[in-house]
Amino acid sequence: MLLYLDKRRSYLVRVERERRVHTHKGFIDLTGLIGREFGARIHSNKGVEFVAFKPTIRDYIFKISRRTQIIYPKDISLIVFFSGIGPGSRVVEGGTGAGALTAALANYVRPSGKVYSYEIRREFLEVAAENLRRTGLIDHVELKNRDLTEGIEERDVDAVILDMATPWLVVPHAYGALRGSGTFVSFSPTVDQAVKTVEALRQNGFAGIETFESMFRGMQIERGRTRPETLMTGHTGYITVARKALR
Amino acid sequence: MLLYLDKRRSYLVRVERERRVHTHKGFIDLTGLIGREFGARIHSNKGVEFVAFKPTIRDYIFKISRRTQIIYPKDISLIVFFSGIGPGSRVVEGGTGAGALTAALANYVRPSGKVYSYEIRREFLEVAAENLRRTGLIDHVELKNRDLTEGIEERDVDAVILDMATPWLVVPHAYGALRGSGTFVSFSPTVDQAVKTVEALRQNGFAGIETFESMFRGMQIERGRTRPETLMTGHTGYITVARKALR
Amino acid sequence: MLLYLDKRRSYLVRVERERRVHTHKGFIDLTGLIGREFGARIHSNKGVEFVAFKPTIRDYIFKISRRTQIIYPKDISLIVFFSGIGPGSRVVEGGTGAGALTAALANYVRPSGKVYSYEIRREFLEVAAENLRRTGLIDHVELKNRDLTEGIEERDVDAVILDMATPWLVVPHAYGALRGSGTFVSFSPTVDQAVKTVEALRQNGFAGIETFESMFRGMQIERGRTRPETLMTGHTGYITVARKALR
Amino acid sequence: MLLYLDKRRSYLVRVERERRVHTHKGFIDLTGLIGREFGARIHSNKGVEFVAFKPTIRDYIFKISRRTQIIYPKDISLIVFFSGIGPGSRVVEGGTGAGALTAALANYVRPSGKVYSYEIRREFLEVAAENLRRTGLIDHVELKNRDLTEGIEERDVDAVILDMATPWLVVPHAYGALRGSGTFVSFSPTVDQAVKTVEALRQNGFAGIETFESMFRGMQIERGRTRPETLMTGHTGYITVARKALR
Repeated sequence: MLLYLDKRRSYLVRVERERRVHTHKGFIDLTGLIGREFGARIHSNKGVEFVAFKPTIRDYIFKISRRTQIIYPKDISLIVFFSGIGPGSRVVEGGTGAGALTAALANYVRPSGKVYSYEIRREFLEVAAENLRRTGLIDHVELKNRDLTEGIEERDVDAVILDMATPWLVVPHAYGALRGSGTFVSFSPTVDQAVKTVEALRQNGFAGIETFESMFRGMQIERGRTRPETLMTGHTGYITVARKALR
Repeated sequence: MLLYLDKRRSYLVRVERERRVHTHKGFIDLTGLIGREFGARIHSNKGVEFVAFKPTIRDYIFKISRRTQIIYPKDISLIVFFSGIGPGSRVVEGGTGAGALTAALANYVRPSGKVYSYEIRREFLEVAAENLRRTGLIDHVELKNRDLTEGIEERDVDAVILDMATPWLVVPHAYGALRGSGTFVSFSPTVDQAVKTVEALRQNGFAGIETFESMFRGMQIERGRTRPETLMTGHTGYITVARKALR
Repeated sequence: MLLYLDKRRSYLVRVERERRVHTHKGFIDLTGLIGREFGARIHSNKGVEFVAFKPTIRDYIFKISRRTQIIYPKDISLIVFFSGIGPGSRVVEGGTGAGALTAALANYVRPSGKVYSYEIRREFLEVAAENLRRTGLIDHVELKNRDLTEGIEERDVDAVILDMATPWLVVPHAYGALRGSGTFVSFSPTVDQAVKTVEALRQNGFAGIETFESMFRGMQIERGRTRPETLMTGHTGYITVARKALR
Repeated sequence: MLLYLDKRRSYLVRVERERRVHTHKGFIDLTGLIGREFGARIHSNKGVEFVAFKPTIRDYIFKISRRTQIIYPKDISLIVFFSGIGPGSRVVEGGTGAGALTAALANYVRPSGKVYSYEIRREFLEVAAENLRRTGLIDHVELKNRDLTEGIEERDVDAVILDMATPWLVVPHAYGALRGSGTFVSFSPTVDQAVKTVEALRQNGFAGIETFESMFRGMQIERGRTRPETLMTGHTGYITVARKALR
């Protein structure tokens, strides 16, 4: 259950009898939510109204990302879209990190697809596993404590999706793992990472190579004084996409 | 099959014996592609190399959108993501237009979900039906020649997604059609449409209302002379999202 | 003198014998700067190096703006440029605020031009006067404690430049005050202010009406890990420009 | 005289008896403008209305830039502002190109300052000289047919401003030519040029080094259907600024 106050403050909770959630706006007794429909309004002991939403994949990702700040909804959505994946796709991902992107990929390859997610840092894998259990998506993911720069075990996958420091080292392995026409997607904060990745793609038989960035700006909507928001994230990273062409 | 030359020129074709595709770079005899794997390279009679990619949802949408220019990948991906939909979701959409957004939605609700797509202009419905057949997604869509501003027939849907001139007129119907906590998403080119839509959402029991826009900029990657691309689309539209809170 | 540490921390000081400036990086004894050239390096008692720059108009404006947050260098520079002013121009400005834009205008109309700056809030005029004295530009400005929405006293001015809540109320007065072909420039945070201003300009004989916004993004330059900065101001305001056409 | 039709179509002309200007909207007999005030409206033989504006520095630059496409108003205005120049400043500039940036600099250093503008391509110098004569700013400029990468002849200048392919080669010369605390500004299209320039600045005793880019987006203002413009220039170049610190 997502107890929603406003777009910056919401609480992901499990509804149980006699459980209380403490917020800056007072506490909420979750007993009152048992048996109620999603979308129900509930008040804290200080009389502040919250809405009890059913969490979506976006909410889960927002919660996971907040702790690690690695990747943003604007980027996750483009990565998913440009990867061309959908229900049934088999996807190799790395690094897993806290599992935010993993959760998004798992959500879209359900029910018959699979995400093979590589991560070398064991402590992150545990965090990711917990996050994926919470979102109910763990069955669609195989977490692997292995180094993607040393090789990919899967073959004929539909997409290889990277959010790691040295994606160019994975490019030759990605070529081997992808089916013909399969997609490669990489997210990197620096220009130099994008350049090295594009060069590796060009040297390794990929075609349709493109790099881009997106910017996201909120609007304050109020009749008579509508304006874009002052605060904006200026940069997260560049996304590079490509497809495997046969040699 | 997508015959890919570069990111601005590609050709979506059906591979058949004795069929030729004429391009600015000469013609390609499709007989040569029969039995070959996706990702194969093929040359036109002028010796120019093309790659025969398996089309992804992104390619289909790009082809559909080019003719109508309504909605962009950067927007479609955010709409899908913020709607929270996935395999199994039931979605009401309108207007159908040429079916670009419809195809994206259908792709992600497969195999058990459904898109109910409303369109008042009968000639568009025919174009959309043809486009959806081509993408193989028609079975996941119910096309309806009805006016969304007059009502929604479905109940307990997961999302209502609008790309139409007067979305605010649909807001009360969307409230009735959505399950509690279900999402509303609307795409509109003008500030005024966004303002009217947000006001209608506030008056009709929605919470979690947000409006934003995204910008997309390509990069020219070339070692020693990397730079953002000169050409950029400055604006397509604002996206407004909200969720149904119970009264 | 501007004691510069880095782009976020600098100190505008008057160099005097026996004066100390206290910073987060220790104190600096200004005696050591007497008789030294601009650009000299000096160390705090903690051994941190500062550079003693001659302040430019940009530094003055940065210092003035920091306290009021009204208007940004990216906007000031476009306002100056689109106004078409230069040495000798006569300019009406309002509201004065803390004098940041006033200082920029005064800097560029020197030595023979004049800025007539209107402000209704007397307390702001005092702050502005002090800021303009500090920058040495006060002689090129006439500060006026009057309401621009009630009329403009000057005639045949080259430009009317507004940063105030209701610029549209000044449009008819601006028409009267401007010489033929003179420029009108207005800066406003909201879409609605821009719309009302443009409508007033259309109704009052102006031509060449344009509204735009600019965005400014810093780069982190470091060989091998160059990237745009994460922090960015998403919006400050819209700039509307126009020119007086005779009726 | 600037015959203004709309923001994309205007004509810079010299008013003379019996002279006709031919436009897409018919011809205009300039005899009718003799003795009339700036801002006067005049009709073509097809009845289309033009406004006869007095050209501003912005108009001149727009006309000069259109032929060479090198540098944009959004960039020129930031270059001028961050350079800190004003009436009386002595500025070294290179390359001259068609003289667009030269004209802007000359406009702001008037009446007592000077722009020393270097250009190795003799044919450009002739174009620039003609453009500067047209704008009436030639007396404030000294055009020099010399290579800036080989040295700067002036000393104690207030600013060195570069729009050339290899600005980093000029950095050591700029250090020698600038007075202490003087400003260096360079405009370059690629990331790599910005990186090389920043590195040269760091190695040559400059401080206050910053690199940034700006984006400019027009608005279509129409009550009830206001929106940003679709067309936008996605990238022109990066601006790097720095100041000379003494060693």
